[in-house]
Amino acid sequence: LLSFVLAESALELVPKEIRGSPSVASDARRRGVDPSGILLDRSFHHSAMTRLRDSERRGRPDLVHVTLLNVTGTPLYLEGRVKVYVHTRDDVIVEFREKTRIPKNYLRFRGLMEKVLVERPEGELVSARNAGLKELVRKALSPDFVVGLSVQGSPMEPGMLGKQLAVIEEACVIVGGFPRGHFSPSTLSLVEELVRIDDRPLEAHVVAARVVYEVERALFSTNR
Amino acid sequence: LLSFVLAESALELVPKEIRGSPSVASDARRRGVDPSGILLDRSFHHSAMTRLRDSERRGRPDLVHVTLLNVTGTPLYLEGRVKVYVHTRDDVIVEFREKTRIPKNYLRFRGLMEKVLVERPEGELVSARNAGLKELVRKALSPDFVVGLSVQGSPMEPGMLGKQLAVIEEACVIVGGFPRGHFSPSTLSLVEELVRIDDRPLEAHVVAARVVYEVERALFSTNR
Repeated sequence: LLSFVLAESALELVPKEIRGSPSVASDARRRGVDPSGILLDRSFHHSAMTRLRDSERRGRPDLVHVTLLNVTGTPLYLEGRVKVYVHTRDDVIVEFREKTRIPKNYLRFRGLMEKVLVERPEGELVSARNAGLKELVRKALSPDFVVGLSVQGSPMEPGMLGKQLAVIEEACVIVGGFPRGHFSPSTLSLVEELVRIDDRPLEAHVVAARVVYEVERALFSTNR
Repeated sequence: LLSFVLAESALELVPKEIRGSPSVASDARRRGVDPSGILLDRSFHHSAMTRLRDSERRGRPDLVHVTLLNVTGTPLYLEGRVKVYVHTRDDVIVEFREKTRIPKNYLRFRGLMEKVLVERPEGELVSARNAGLKELVRKALSPDFVVGLSVQGSPMEPGMLGKQLAVIEEACVIVGGFPRGHFSPSTLSLVEELVRIDDRPLEAHVVAARVVYEVERALFSTNR
């Protein structure tokens, strides 16, 4: 089983500091919901977000969505051989039960994430709890091998990475769920090998598609 | 150069027949726009859509969006070696100028597509015109080879397809931009080889990511 973890993801509810700002208030009014239950989204809250710390790494649920679609659409996932987790920058773990499909429509995905982050359901198809990446990786998953994908990593041919991962019983792949910058030191401390699969920087959704595909190629060429 | 064509795509403005329906009217009111300028979207117009012919193949701009993101996020595209076209089921061709990035946020993408379908700009980063798939493929592109991806095609290992496409000067790849069903006979008549790259049915965005990646692998392993 492969665990796919999107780490430090730019997915969070609108933080207290900017709930009263005009862009957030008008968004909440238009949608008829309380600002505290709205997903922070740079496309709508850009002006208010300039006041937030680390602003350029926050409020990108679209990026999380597209990356999840690329993992959950693969045969490997649909056969129950990949499990998906989203770790958010404020330490919430969103967990997707095996083979669970996620809405392809962004607004439905947004609604699902808002519900999950507000209600923190347990044992559902999509559940959420307060936990850091270390707790997820070391305690809950305790994989045999943890690889992180980053432009700061050592170059590795993606086919080679797929072959490596395919022979490991419990492997964990960590991809950054943020639009720019690098993994934090605490994330890096969990990673046994940091690799880059291209000499150009790739977006998270492209990395996700390629890594899962290469694991699939390696597995299915030997096991089928 | 590779031309990537999303054919018979489920992308259109709300058709006349259902512009007055409650779900469309309330959507238009909420957004403050005329129903004639709104993208048909199953997530919002589901009940009204049951009255449309071929309803189950229509109103999926989300699918088009995610597929485009998977092509336009690749190094091959970013180097200007893939050109992207969306052919819609009612014969509009949306053309993206080389290396043009598309919004990752769905609502911004929706806004862009609505503008383009209403205004039909020419010579812009994203342009649109009335034309069928045949006119695009035979007249505008006139490629050396046209391959269609379909579960009805002959099995072909995706790496092999990538190698085949990589050695062709002007190749055209056609993927279906609809959620279910198969290519129409008129699309099939343009396809020289119909292939499937997996023994399981794959969604358009997964097929798109894999085909472009395999062409890239084939090109870069020889040319770099």
